[in-house]
Amino acid sequence: MLTNGGCPKTALSIKDALEAVEGRWKLLILFSLSGGSKRFKQLSKEVPGITDKTLSKELKNLEGNKLITRRVYDTFPPTVEYTITDHGKSLENVLEALHYWGLAHRAVVIEK
Amino acid sequence: MLTNGGCPKTALSIKDALEAVEGRWKLLILFSLSGGSKRFKQLSKEVPGITDKTLSKELKNLEGNKLITRRVYDTFPPTVEYTITDHGKSLENVLEALHYWGLAHRAVVIEK
Repeated sequence: MLTNGGCPKTALSIKDALEAVEGRWKLLILFSLSGGSKRFKQLSKEVPGITDKTLSKELKNLEGNKLITRRVYDTFPPTVEYTITDHGKSLENVLEALHYWGLAHRAVVIEK
Repeated sequence: MLTNGGCPKTALSIKDALEAVEGRWKLLILFSLSGGSKRFKQLSKEVPGITDKTLSKELKNLEGNKLITRRVYDTFPPTVEYTITDHGKSLENVLEALHYWGLAHRAVVIEK
């Protein structure tokens, strides 16, 4: 696609996608949730380097974009669990492409 | 990959990739440059909504990550042209995955 040059309509869909997963955290959170539903504290441990404040903000945003659901269980104390949605899971191809490119990038730039 | 859950090594390469293309602008700039080398003012027109200050900052960062090259031509006044590198072009699969997902996202969230 890159070799075809930038058609405006393609740029628009890429912009939509980038706005939904903007920043370095959202995809990492989704990646962690892809291993199964998790509670806030579990996520906070599994996403390297994120603060609780940022995690909380990102989870709300992901919920707004229908990428995850938040479920409160009537236990004592209440349990809150985050689960990836089918729409969130559909980011799989994006994550896979990023993964392979990240490996190449490390070889080209970071380890030189 | 998402269904396999989050292995830490995969998360690391995804983090590398996200840091290199972080934010909503870098991929859009690369997408525009994929249509051919461009001068600053051309890019500023073709990337919708970017300010000159941000464009300038992003171009420096992209150059540092070896995703583009900056070439100064000895004309009067001097001409500066930005070109995507092979490493930058290798992001094609990521852009393609984002493009298709962006279309789906518009259907699921934005147009509902």
